[in-house]
Amino acid sequence: MRKIIKNGTIVTASDTYFGDILIDDGIIVMIGVDLDDEGAEIVDASGCYVFPGGIDPHTHLDMPFGGTVTVDDFESGTIAAAFGGTTTVIDFCLTSKGAPLKSAVETWHRKSAGKAVIDYSFHLMVSEVTDEVLAELPQIIEEEGITSFKVFMAYKNVLQADDGTLYKTLLVAKEQGALVMVHAENGDVIDFLVRKALEEGNTDPIYHALTRPAVLEGEATGRAADLTALADSQLYVVHVTCAEAVWKIAEARKKGLRVFGETCPQYLTLDQTDLERPDFEGAKYVWSPPLREKRNQDVLWNALRNGELQTVGSDQCSFNFKGQKDLGLGDFSKIPNGGPMIEDRFTILFSEGVQKGRLSLNKFVDVVSTTNAKLFGLFPQKGTIAIGSDADIVIFDPSVERTLSVDSHHMKVDYSAFEGMKVTGEPVTVLVRGEFVVRDGLFVGRPGYGQYLHRRRFGEADKPAVKKLPIGGAY
Amino acid sequence: MRKIIKNGTIVTASDTYFGDILIDDGIIVMIGVDLDDEGAEIVDASGCYVFPGGIDPHTHLDMPFGGTVTVDDFESGTIAAAFGGTTTVIDFCLTSKGAPLKSAVETWHRKSAGKAVIDYSFHLMVSEVTDEVLAELPQIIEEEGITSFKVFMAYKNVLQADDGTLYKTLLVAKEQGALVMVHAENGDVIDFLVRKALEEGNTDPIYHALTRPAVLEGEATGRAADLTALADSQLYVVHVTCAEAVWKIAEARKKGLRVFGETCPQYLTLDQTDLERPDFEGAKYVWSPPLREKRNQDVLWNALRNGELQTVGSDQCSFNFKGQKDLGLGDFSKIPNGGPMIEDRFTILFSEGVQKGRLSLNKFVDVVSTTNAKLFGLFPQKGTIAIGSDADIVIFDPSVERTLSVDSHHMKVDYSAFEGMKVTGEPVTVLVRGEFVVRDGLFVGRPGYGQYLHRRRFGEADKPAVKKLPIGGAY
Amino acid sequence: MRKIIKNGTIVTASDTYFGDILIDDGIIVMIGVDLDDEGAEIVDASGCYVFPGGIDPHTHLDMPFGGTVTVDDFESGTIAAAFGGTTTVIDFCLTSKGAPLKSAVETWHRKSAGKAVIDYSFHLMVSEVTDEVLAELPQIIEEEGITSFKVFMAYKNVLQADDGTLYKTLLVAKEQGALVMVHAENGDVIDFLVRKALEEGNTDPIYHALTRPAVLEGEATGRAADLTALADSQLYVVHVTCAEAVWKIAEARKKGLRVFGETCPQYLTLDQTDLERPDFEGAKYVWSPPLREKRNQDVLWNALRNGELQTVGSDQCSFNFKGQKDLGLGDFSKIPNGGPMIEDRFTILFSEGVQKGRLSLNKFVDVVSTTNAKLFGLFPQKGTIAIGSDADIVIFDPSVERTLSVDSHHMKVDYSAFEGMKVTGEPVTVLVRGEFVVRDGLFVGRPGYGQYLHRRRFGEADKPAVKKLPIGGAY
Amino acid sequence: MRKIIKNGTIVTASDTYFGDILIDDGIIVMIGVDLDDEGAEIVDASGCYVFPGGIDPHTHLDMPFGGTVTVDDFESGTIAAAFGGTTTVIDFCLTSKGAPLKSAVETWHRKSAGKAVIDYSFHLMVSEVTDEVLAELPQIIEEEGITSFKVFMAYKNVLQADDGTLYKTLLVAKEQGALVMVHAENGDVIDFLVRKALEEGNTDPIYHALTRPAVLEGEATGRAADLTALADSQLYVVHVTCAEAVWKIAEARKKGLRVFGETCPQYLTLDQTDLERPDFEGAKYVWSPPLREKRNQDVLWNALRNGELQTVGSDQCSFNFKGQKDLGLGDFSKIPNGGPMIEDRFTILFSEGVQKGRLSLNKFVDVVSTTNAKLFGLFPQKGTIAIGSDADIVIFDPSVERTLSVDSHHMKVDYSAFEGMKVTGEPVTVLVRGEFVVRDGLFVGRPGYGQYLHRRRFGEADKPAVKKLPIGGAY
Repeated sequence: MRKIIKNGTIVTASDTYFGDILIDDGIIVMIGVDLDDEGAEIVDASGCYVFPGGIDPHTHLDMPFGGTVTVDDFESGTIAAAFGGTTTVIDFCLTSKGAPLKSAVETWHRKSAGKAVIDYSFHLMVSEVTDEVLAELPQIIEEEGITSFKVFMAYKNVLQADDGTLYKTLLVAKEQGALVMVHAENGDVIDFLVRKALEEGNTDPIYHALTRPAVLEGEATGRAADLTALADSQLYVVHVTCAEAVWKIAEARKKGLRVFGETCPQYLTLDQTDLERPDFEGAKYVWSPPLREKRNQDVLWNALRNGELQTVGSDQCSFNFKGQKDLGLGDFSKIPNGGPMIEDRFTILFSEGVQKGRLSLNKFVDVVSTTNAKLFGLFPQKGTIAIGSDADIVIFDPSVERTLSVDSHHMKVDYSAFEGMKVTGEPVTVLVRGEFVVRDGLFVGRPGYGQYLHRRRFGEADKPAVKKLPIGGAY
Repeated sequence: MRKIIKNGTIVTASDTYFGDILIDDGIIVMIGVDLDDEGAEIVDASGCYVFPGGIDPHTHLDMPFGGTVTVDDFESGTIAAAFGGTTTVIDFCLTSKGAPLKSAVETWHRKSAGKAVIDYSFHLMVSEVTDEVLAELPQIIEEEGITSFKVFMAYKNVLQADDGTLYKTLLVAKEQGALVMVHAENGDVIDFLVRKALEEGNTDPIYHALTRPAVLEGEATGRAADLTALADSQLYVVHVTCAEAVWKIAEARKKGLRVFGETCPQYLTLDQTDLERPDFEGAKYVWSPPLREKRNQDVLWNALRNGELQTVGSDQCSFNFKGQKDLGLGDFSKIPNGGPMIEDRFTILFSEGVQKGRLSLNKFVDVVSTTNAKLFGLFPQKGTIAIGSDADIVIFDPSVERTLSVDSHHMKVDYSAFEGMKVTGEPVTVLVRGEFVVRDGLFVGRPGYGQYLHRRRFGEADKPAVKKLPIGGAY
Repeated sequence: MRKIIKNGTIVTASDTYFGDILIDDGIIVMIGVDLDDEGAEIVDASGCYVFPGGIDPHTHLDMPFGGTVTVDDFESGTIAAAFGGTTTVIDFCLTSKGAPLKSAVETWHRKSAGKAVIDYSFHLMVSEVTDEVLAELPQIIEEEGITSFKVFMAYKNVLQADDGTLYKTLLVAKEQGALVMVHAENGDVIDFLVRKALEEGNTDPIYHALTRPAVLEGEATGRAADLTALADSQLYVVHVTCAEAVWKIAEARKKGLRVFGETCPQYLTLDQTDLERPDFEGAKYVWSPPLREKRNQDVLWNALRNGELQTVGSDQCSFNFKGQKDLGLGDFSKIPNGGPMIEDRFTILFSEGVQKGRLSLNKFVDVVSTTNAKLFGLFPQKGTIAIGSDADIVIFDPSVERTLSVDSHHMKVDYSAFEGMKVTGEPVTVLVRGEFVVRDGLFVGRPGYGQYLHRRRFGEADKPAVKKLPIGGAY
Repeated sequence: MRKIIKNGTIVTASDTYFGDILIDDGIIVMIGVDLDDEGAEIVDASGCYVFPGGIDPHTHLDMPFGGTVTVDDFESGTIAAAFGGTTTVIDFCLTSKGAPLKSAVETWHRKSAGKAVIDYSFHLMVSEVTDEVLAELPQIIEEEGITSFKVFMAYKNVLQADDGTLYKTLLVAKEQGALVMVHAENGDVIDFLVRKALEEGNTDPIYHALTRPAVLEGEATGRAADLTALADSQLYVVHVTCAEAVWKIAEARKKGLRVFGETCPQYLTLDQTDLERPDFEGAKYVWSPPLREKRNQDVLWNALRNGELQTVGSDQCSFNFKGQKDLGLGDFSKIPNGGPMIEDRFTILFSEGVQKGRLSLNKFVDVVSTTNAKLFGLFPQKGTIAIGSDADIVIFDPSVERTLSVDSHHMKVDYSAFEGMKVTGEPVTVLVRGEFVVRDGLFVGRPGYGQYLHRRRFGEADKPAVKKLPIGGAY
């Protein structure tokens, strides 16, 4: 059935205009003034922004970690995402050393199929680059459309890859048209600092931050950029938190390198002092890299505005305070790393970014949706409001004032990192491929509705949906 | 009368898609798949890109300079612009010391009215900031919609303002919501170097470049940025030519300053060796700042891609080789500065940028049109293809291979800076506010059709055409 | 008569050792263990450091300024210098526009002859570079041994030279083997800020600092360095106060430029808050450039240690609080710029530098004496303890704890900038060319004893006193 | 027996003067004009420079490497050093994993005792930092006076330490007052590149350079500096070869870090093209890091002049071309790394540095001797010409023009890296502790004369030989 989104202010990464959108068969087929179409369902967006659905390029749903599993799976996680204005997530598919990549991907398909209420895709987490892995990668890219691989420079003896592995992955990525993602922290030194802190009896959550200083993120970021330069490849640095790392990315880009950076809402709004909250509440704020000193926030906002950083991901990785986070009572290193963020990413960026004058409306759309789609091979099917694109649409009421809370969020996790925070704006209605998932604040979607998305190779992302012309592209 | 642009690949600063555009009363009112509208004229764009019309933020039409006047006036200049895919120019209105600003603006209205075939607006060239000038500025902004002022750091004893004047202008601009444009070269030292070269008998055109070294552009650019920081104001550096200047702008932006940079096609494609062409032909390549060593070109392209530079202007300032450029025979300092560029800016950027993989299609649109509109208060009326925007549209055939030449260009000037250069692509049909100005390669416009554009104040540029919502904006 | 300095710890810019020094005819002729020489006078230095006499490269004695004259002349000033461990001063000879340089130098000879108790030389302050000045310079260098010229980028309409003049001076300096000194602040903008502050009724001493922000010193420093690069000449930036300026000098040196920087004790120890002292006492702390925020001090100390800055001058320029500083009551711009510093430079650097672990003993000697001699053509006659050098020697007792005060200082000026400050160490005995000027804390010198010093050209400074070998030198 | 060095031009790191030196019992006891001492032997230095003996902080004598052993041992190596003007070497004592450090030191004592003709000391090469190693270090420092430890970031699976080990070593060094030396190249990536090159059949010597690109040295240098910042410790980067690494050191020093850098004569004079010499001669030029592109040489010279680099070591590590270097025929990775340099370091620096105007005489002494002594705890016993210092003296005739060649050098190795190179100057007479080792170009020393030197802890280096005063020191 056809729908018309009427009377909203449509916003894309470059434009802001008043108009109506006609959706047919899940696709945006017409945009105009006072559209009229008999039989089309009218969706009123008066007084609202009409944004392309958010694309969250960084989630960990239903993921095993240190003997436990993240609370939110593809059902609760994507429902929360939808309520938060996100219509596509790209989740990290965890591989196991020795096992075929294919089996890991199949596991992730099992986790997601039948559960997701919005569309989704996978990145691969690469923990080793053996000949077998190398041999399998082209097939995974071709058959699964997985065109991004994550390498860890931290988590020694668990996920950490050495520099040779990172470099080899960069070469493969270049050859195959994939994007290497990197968790950039110096794992060797962190491992030493953590053990030293524990030996000295420093077990509180704040030591999570103190044992992962910013200089070690800056160092690893620069190292990854240098290897990318050598490989003439492309790199995406996930969850950038600090000035030290931003400068390294900026320097690489100044040299013309294809190095990109993502930050997260938590680093833009929370800071290291949150780890000192009493009654072990600091554990709720344990992310890796950790929250930083407040002065980094201005640097991050400015980097988004200037294009030194390009995207905002949630790094959703929710663990309950009771029963999971408290595994780290008496030993901060046992606190499961991560927190709930999938639901609030979009609104936080609007409220703290646009409303406070730090980002233009267009740049907001760019960092929460459009560039994410472009970098990860989903554009223009996803990431914009344009003819031929999927009708993934958020009707966002900027007049709403609300308070974030575990009581009102839709994630299953038992706390909110933003408990009590006042924000402006709410995604009141959300459509995925033309179908309502959230309507006037109520969930009307269906587990299993979400589709798995094959993604294009890196650099092919800006081709038109209905291709008629060869289109050169350069990032 | 209504028109439908059919079957083209529409490109904006963020999107690329296949679709049709319905124009009514000069405005884009609908975009969609297979649009049908009885009575509308069908314009076929099959196999073509459909771009928003180019916006040239930097022209000198009918301008007196050193006892002569630029060859191309608002008629030939805007006809050439139209053929080149440009639908709006912002020309520099030359003020005279002592005379009211208003009279200068009136002079410029007389020069343009009845002649321009595309839309146009004015910047003010500020050569002194007296109390009278200060008193008059708010009125000029309010009544004329002139929200950008140019200050010269070069041309000693002619146009050059001292740093106090630049600083004062920055303060006024901040207060009034205007953008200060700066010609950044150290005029004092250049003046000395020029006199020294002449005294030593070095009179050939190449000495134009040798007496204006890149370090003096870098120096002045950094100085202007420092004063902008101190004033907490906004700055637009015109015609950036070299790495030295780019790094200063990048550094300023890294600190969060609102400092912007423009480069020009000539600096992206020509170089200092062109000034050494025999038979005084080097004089054709005399711009200020001068053409630089070739190695700067990669820096400039990369800066456009990265967003360290934001726009491309033409600095159109055409003088005939015979009768004008030759005033400098035997004394390079008497060669009128400037060259023809208004017609080729758009195609050069496409051909050398997009076709050669240096810019994405979207970034191309951004630098030749969209950001120019945003920075100078014309957006979204101009600078994009979106509902409610003026139907300023270029149908561009990327399959055309052609050779630039004075024989085929539409400027009146007697030479082409790109004589013999092969380019890919041609703006075959150009509409301004829905009316054809160029159709299938023929001029069908009318002198006087072009309208003068009142521009918004700085920072208000990204408000929607049909305003329904308050929209935060931050550059 | 011969003297032996016995049992001291001798310190040079590179060495620290225990030994005796034999002086004959004012020259150091022997250094050794347990020197014995019949008939030589024994001077005991047990428990003391034996330093080469300090060289103060920046003083303004008996100088007219804004209708008044500095309090300390060549008599009181050099007596105070001697008490402070300084045995040579290089004073700024003020030239007058239009008058021959020669007459200015003669005036300065008249001011100094018969008064100075230590040796001295002159820099020239160049306020205009006319053809007459250019014609006269080689003679001044040759006959007077004045091989350094100061150019002002500040003090608009008084001393300020434009960039063309600075550049021309750099060219002349290169040709003649002289060193250009520059007062680096953007005078145009400061002039505007000062007038604006006064118009707005902001007349207190703190506005002296607020109208001369650090960014304007950084800007001018970078500009001077850029012009030096272009001229391939040599530059000495006087009184560097802030990080902004240090980074510009460091950047220039990184490129291989011969750019040098001096800081002063006041910038290393006092800060902007001193200008806010009540009862107009802030006026005592009015220097140009002004005292800065405290965070700059670490940058300055580190720059001295690293060699990004090379010297410490006093910028001695003393005005009485009563009768002179108070000219600026109600108008900070009328406060005579400058303060008393000649006497405390040496001890402050020892006490705050060496004692607090910021400088090694050798680096201390280097920055208060040796490099000053080398840069300004006095080495090795002055600036070290070595065979053949003048016996300009300071016997310094590091065990003394004392309090700086107007009550105990030897300058005539009516206040001390360091009133009440506790320091470690005292120059107890000071010899100039082998003769006591201060002995065991008592003045035993004679006005007129001081000799005028002809200086070598830049880059010839490290030739040996008794030249037997060609010696290559490169800074 | 006493000696007087007469009529030479004495040069130290800060001074240049004409004088005589009296030596008694191996110590400099007097310096003066026309010294006269009955019974003292007169050594004429007319027309010569009298330098402090060179200190080579980086040699590998009698060292096993890849199944072979360096050709020059403590006898031939130190004889060659003496002929080259070097009077002290600090050799690297190779430790074995699992074995006590003490046993390694004993091995090195056995290699050197009875052989060395000049004085010597050891650094420790640390390949693992186990609890046993940690426990043993304080004793080694105390008993052996070994206050510097080298960590390798390259040579994967052989010597390479991980970042945790480097960090731990930095902490220990800080605690114990030692200096960490680092070989800064990214071994993981190099290992991959080497294997890849060999797999692709690229086996010639030039691939040694191509598989160890400069960016990997820059990366590792920055990483080591970052870890030093985190540990608040001190770092000495050995054999710096390229701009990429110099900038990282400069940046660290700009932040106030105690990070130091050494370069070597080969990097200042030879370049990557030497690896392409035909007939496998390129193998003679295999050092790690490799020779670089020529443009780096200016950066290195400038860094020495500016103090961004502080010392010059030889990295002496000689292998015969026949029988050793040719192990790498058909596989560049099997070419023993290193070359002969101990004999030419001093003269090359004089001839290419001082004679060509790149370094002052004083800076030359500083980088080949004085700072080496200061950083490694040998000052002021070694590294200068001052009262109380060892009479380690080089009488250097700058008028000699000679040609470097295997035919005339004193190393046992069968080739010279500088074959046919013309140099200016020769160390004609060399004394160690007052005894002739080389006299008028003839060897007159004695194996076993050389003494092992206990070194002071880091930061205590600038205390006087005969201590009478507490002396603060800060690098």
